[in-house]
Amino acid sequence: MTVSPFDHPLLSGLLGDEEAARHFSVEADIEAMLSFERALTEAEAECGVIPRDAGPAIVQALAAFRPDTAKLRAAVAKDGVVVPELLRQIRAAVGGQYGEFVHLGATSQDVIDTSLVLRLCAAVEHIGLLLSENIVRLASLEQEFGGRALMAVTRMQPAIPITVADRIASWRAPLERHQQRLKEQSGRLLVVQFGGAAGTLDKLSDKRAAVRAALAAKLGLGDAPQWHSQRDAFAEFAGWLSLVAGSLGKLGQDVALMAQAGTDIKLSSGGGSSAMPHKQNPVRAEALVALARFNATQLSGMQQALVHEQERSGAAWALEWLIMPQMVVAAAAALRLAAELARQIESLGH
Amino acid sequence: MTVSPFDHPLLSGLLGDEEAARHFSVEADIEAMLSFERALTEAEAECGVIPRDAGPAIVQALAAFRPDTAKLRAAVAKDGVVVPELLRQIRAAVGGQYGEFVHLGATSQDVIDTSLVLRLCAAVEHIGLLLSENIVRLASLEQEFGGRALMAVTRMQPAIPITVADRIASWRAPLERHQQRLKEQSGRLLVVQFGGAAGTLDKLSDKRAAVRAALAAKLGLGDAPQWHSQRDAFAEFAGWLSLVAGSLGKLGQDVALMAQAGTDIKLSSGGGSSAMPHKQNPVRAEALVALARFNATQLSGMQQALVHEQERSGAAWALEWLIMPQMVVAAAAALRLAAELARQIESLGH
Amino acid sequence: MTVSPFDHPLLSGLLGDEEAARHFSVEADIEAMLSFERALTEAEAECGVIPRDAGPAIVQALAAFRPDTAKLRAAVAKDGVVVPELLRQIRAAVGGQYGEFVHLGATSQDVIDTSLVLRLCAAVEHIGLLLSENIVRLASLEQEFGGRALMAVTRMQPAIPITVADRIASWRAPLERHQQRLKEQSGRLLVVQFGGAAGTLDKLSDKRAAVRAALAAKLGLGDAPQWHSQRDAFAEFAGWLSLVAGSLGKLGQDVALMAQAGTDIKLSSGGGSSAMPHKQNPVRAEALVALARFNATQLSGMQQALVHEQERSGAAWALEWLIMPQMVVAAAAALRLAAELARQIESLGH
Amino acid sequence: MTVSPFDHPLLSGLLGDEEAARHFSVEADIEAMLSFERALTEAEAECGVIPRDAGPAIVQALAAFRPDTAKLRAAVAKDGVVVPELLRQIRAAVGGQYGEFVHLGATSQDVIDTSLVLRLCAAVEHIGLLLSENIVRLASLEQEFGGRALMAVTRMQPAIPITVADRIASWRAPLERHQQRLKEQSGRLLVVQFGGAAGTLDKLSDKRAAVRAALAAKLGLGDAPQWHSQRDAFAEFAGWLSLVAGSLGKLGQDVALMAQAGTDIKLSSGGGSSAMPHKQNPVRAEALVALARFNATQLSGMQQALVHEQERSGAAWALEWLIMPQMVVAAAAALRLAAELARQIESLGH
Repeated sequence: MTVSPFDHPLLSGLLGDEEAARHFSVEADIEAMLSFERALTEAEAECGVIPRDAGPAIVQALAAFRPDTAKLRAAVAKDGVVVPELLRQIRAAVGGQYGEFVHLGATSQDVIDTSLVLRLCAAVEHIGLLLSENIVRLASLEQEFGGRALMAVTRMQPAIPITVADRIASWRAPLERHQQRLKEQSGRLLVVQFGGAAGTLDKLSDKRAAVRAALAAKLGLGDAPQWHSQRDAFAEFAGWLSLVAGSLGKLGQDVALMAQAGTDIKLSSGGGSSAMPHKQNPVRAEALVALARFNATQLSGMQQALVHEQERSGAAWALEWLIMPQMVVAAAAALRLAAELARQIESLGH
Repeated sequence: MTVSPFDHPLLSGLLGDEEAARHFSVEADIEAMLSFERALTEAEAECGVIPRDAGPAIVQALAAFRPDTAKLRAAVAKDGVVVPELLRQIRAAVGGQYGEFVHLGATSQDVIDTSLVLRLCAAVEHIGLLLSENIVRLASLEQEFGGRALMAVTRMQPAIPITVADRIASWRAPLERHQQRLKEQSGRLLVVQFGGAAGTLDKLSDKRAAVRAALAAKLGLGDAPQWHSQRDAFAEFAGWLSLVAGSLGKLGQDVALMAQAGTDIKLSSGGGSSAMPHKQNPVRAEALVALARFNATQLSGMQQALVHEQERSGAAWALEWLIMPQMVVAAAAALRLAAELARQIESLGH
Repeated sequence: MTVSPFDHPLLSGLLGDEEAARHFSVEADIEAMLSFERALTEAEAECGVIPRDAGPAIVQALAAFRPDTAKLRAAVAKDGVVVPELLRQIRAAVGGQYGEFVHLGATSQDVIDTSLVLRLCAAVEHIGLLLSENIVRLASLEQEFGGRALMAVTRMQPAIPITVADRIASWRAPLERHQQRLKEQSGRLLVVQFGGAAGTLDKLSDKRAAVRAALAAKLGLGDAPQWHSQRDAFAEFAGWLSLVAGSLGKLGQDVALMAQAGTDIKLSSGGGSSAMPHKQNPVRAEALVALARFNATQLSGMQQALVHEQERSGAAWALEWLIMPQMVVAAAAALRLAAELARQIESLGH
Repeated sequence: MTVSPFDHPLLSGLLGDEEAARHFSVEADIEAMLSFERALTEAEAECGVIPRDAGPAIVQALAAFRPDTAKLRAAVAKDGVVVPELLRQIRAAVGGQYGEFVHLGATSQDVIDTSLVLRLCAAVEHIGLLLSENIVRLASLEQEFGGRALMAVTRMQPAIPITVADRIASWRAPLERHQQRLKEQSGRLLVVQFGGAAGTLDKLSDKRAAVRAALAAKLGLGDAPQWHSQRDAFAEFAGWLSLVAGSLGKLGQDVALMAQAGTDIKLSSGGGSSAMPHKQNPVRAEALVALARFNATQLSGMQQALVHEQERSGAAWALEWLIMPQMVVAAAAALRLAAELARQIESLGH
């Protein structure tokens, strides 16, 4: 056990997802923050906010830049955000003449929120692929076993016979709706955050819109008015991550219940026990239930973070940092586990 | 204080919403359940599932039907659902010849879930109107005071000057997105639930689709495959109710903070104190924060209910009953209070 | 369905508890608030804070007092608390000469918090008795069936044989620990709240301690310094209510799982189905799981309410009102259901 | 940002606690698991369950043992627990003659739960010291500034004058109660878990009690009947961790509010801004609010884990792994930050 199983060298093998977790490493975060500063410099140079030649000079300096992470850690403890010290280091690297043009008109939250959104783009693509894979696997299970008989169970009591296809449909249909939901909300989620000190881009005067649009375009994000104190897109996405894990939790619970007597379902291999060699534990099915209840728990905190006072709340913002990445990885891990579980199914129904 | 302030004769005046609560009264529930049985009878008569003349006879009997609620209460304690006893009473009222045709092919969950959806239709319309009213009120506040100066506050410290319009935009923009979200999801939410004992409408053979489509049409709901063990539309809607309350919680928190010194905002009247006659408490603003945190808390339980085992979970289903109606009323109450609070604002900014 | 099933004429038969709910009725609340004002008057008269004869006069007036609840409801909506208007009515009833002595030195929160604690005293006694009853019932089940064989199930797979006594011990031991926990915390919970406008009892000068001690004694509560912004005893008690429901949720889950095949356990009668007459649904067992997950969900909100700013938070305080009573009733209902379920058990094991 | 800020090289400087986190590293976990196997071997050798000389031989082998963590990771993904593969490696290290005696009569849950409890012992001691430090610091602040005037604020409006001592008392009193609570519950929390395959220590026949008592003694833990499916002590402790963070969240919220105008409190240094050099952000105060809301959120999941089916729930158990360590670190971080914040206070009141 470690502070988070998602970061634990052993437990993450079961409960985590390497590909999703990669996007939340410190390296990925710093790389994304540098991308923001790079793109901002280019955008401001193009829009004539900073000298034409400042752009290339800063971009070149950033290419070779390596942060002093010990100093960054100390700075986070003091400032609550990494950006002021990161900028100090970047400006030192860029050098006197152009240093002042780095980050011009931006604020820490612009860098940190946009860095998160950039990484969510990658995570969303990964999760979307896993979601499609699960739908395909369930479809092929339906093709293979759909016509077989299964005893429906309502309120944990045998009801009347149904087909395996009926049961599988209750696993797959929600996942297809989740695809639709993701499409609907991604336009709200995957947008740049750029507002400056208090959201008004006060330092950019009449170039506000142009710089923000250029910045968004360079980062491959949607353009939108600053949302630094409007966190609804994050809370909505967290809800989606919980819906995904929850639907897979139902699948996991069903599989664990079907595996009890061992007649309704046949899994290729189960988990071993240190005390009972005969056992075949439905490990992935159980993990799906755990991850569903985990994200259902976390979501509450992301919604609490909507009470984000005034122009910036250090408290509500940090609460998001504590929760959001774990929800992404939990949803990705659940999708990975569900796909593996589907592969394990050798037989369904009678 | 009562078990729920939403039902409390005194506290509901502050924390509740009469119009929204009305839809969750036992009368509204029974009326909606009878509408289901009425529409089902008509649909099955039209489709030739039951004798042509059974339809009118049953509909007529239902018009005069008055349930014995004492018996219903006892039955819920025994059966976990009200439907079996309600049907016994209905069939007794209809009489021997046609009684057997009531509820044909349906199950308790069809009646209860569809009854809830019917009432959510009405609640959603009410909430939608309140949401529009809030957007309009914020727009008029912006028109009146938008150009005035306000000191931006970031991390609870004075930052730089902005305009009142900037602050109001952070209150209104999320509400406009919530309108869009509601539009996107209502097609998933406002659909009939009709699946019979185990979701297969086994008793209706080749008339399944026709009866369900007719039933949905008569009830003014969308037609969709049964979703008795797929609760994602409810969890998604609960998330929306929490987003609405959360965005208004930010508004409430901001107003309470602006009212501290009493210079940034002027409210027409505040709450009185039993010990300090001089005080003007920002009662509605505080209630908005409370309702936001309440719905953020509840949402977790609605997501836990996604782990809905097999064809029907009495446990996960009852968990929804304990939470969903309160979230609807909390969101409606928050919207009502926010609109009242906006009306209270006599001045904003400097 | 109603806003809260605990207040619902039909659903409360299954999910509620009449005796516990009684203490949260508006009548019980007003009666407790009047007890506070009565006891305060007597205490202050005895301590010479108000004229000797003011005590009896006010007590006599209170005996005949009947509040105008319509006015109270309107006042709560305006003031956020019922007390200012309730006092206006009380003082009018008492009349000019002594009216001013009612509530002297107290504030709304003193009345409302102490009223809640007075009713928690009664609820705690009721819950304590139900807890003991459950322990006794489990002990007699152990006596009757303890020696029989049962297949242990680990990770939802058959493990090795144990005895029924082993399984019952895992249900009973936590309940015994809950008795101990309640004993430990009741001294922190069942105390008077009396602090005046800002907690300093500023109006009572050197009589502070004497009046508070006398007030506590008259109300049968412990004496303690004001805790108006320190809500840890409530959050701790909420945690206990969730532990109780959670332990019974495990019992319910186990019973539902044992009832699946119908061989490990025999229940005297189950819930009927509107579609499948043959079914015997483990209704109470399912309700136990629902109530456990409900209280686990609510507890998060009671803990959020610990962030109670400065000397009084209208927001955090109202959040408690929305949650605490429901948690009490949920725990009581779970205990009632568990005792009934134990009575239903006709056979355990093999 | 990383999956968990508690594990993040930069963010943990603000939001984490190194000393608490140390106990949840994989090294600490494996070391504790080896301690369990070592102590069990010694206990069983002393009690004559295994050959006298097996004890020293195994202990010696364990001293030199280094696990193959890559294999452990793969095994967790397959078995859901690390123990079976860890034992395979241990037995290989011990060698043929005595290998079979390692872990005799125990099961994976015994090793994993007891390993956690051993590390909680250390964490509890650390947290207890931090708690005492906070109480001392608040006492000295009271000594220094207690007599000064402060305007009480109720419902976010100025009320009447109080003293700084009054405000500080509302911060300190809950912490003193938390000390008492910890004392009360530690006897329930810091006990060995030892039950074997299904909790009955079936392999130890009449040596059950003796071996368990010896094992507990060697590990410095209390002796108690197995509690593998009774998780109330963990849920209770999680509640305590949330109470601690919540009380400090109130302190943080108060400090942030006092720092707004900058007159009620003077902090030696605040956080810097990348856009506004003049700002002094109350970073630690905000972090306290974030950590309070984080633990309040997590607690709900620990309570959901009480619904732990039958003799062992892989799902509920994994849910604890995902939550418990983070709650410990969050509480420790909050205490560390609060102590640092107290040191930052240069002046309070007027």
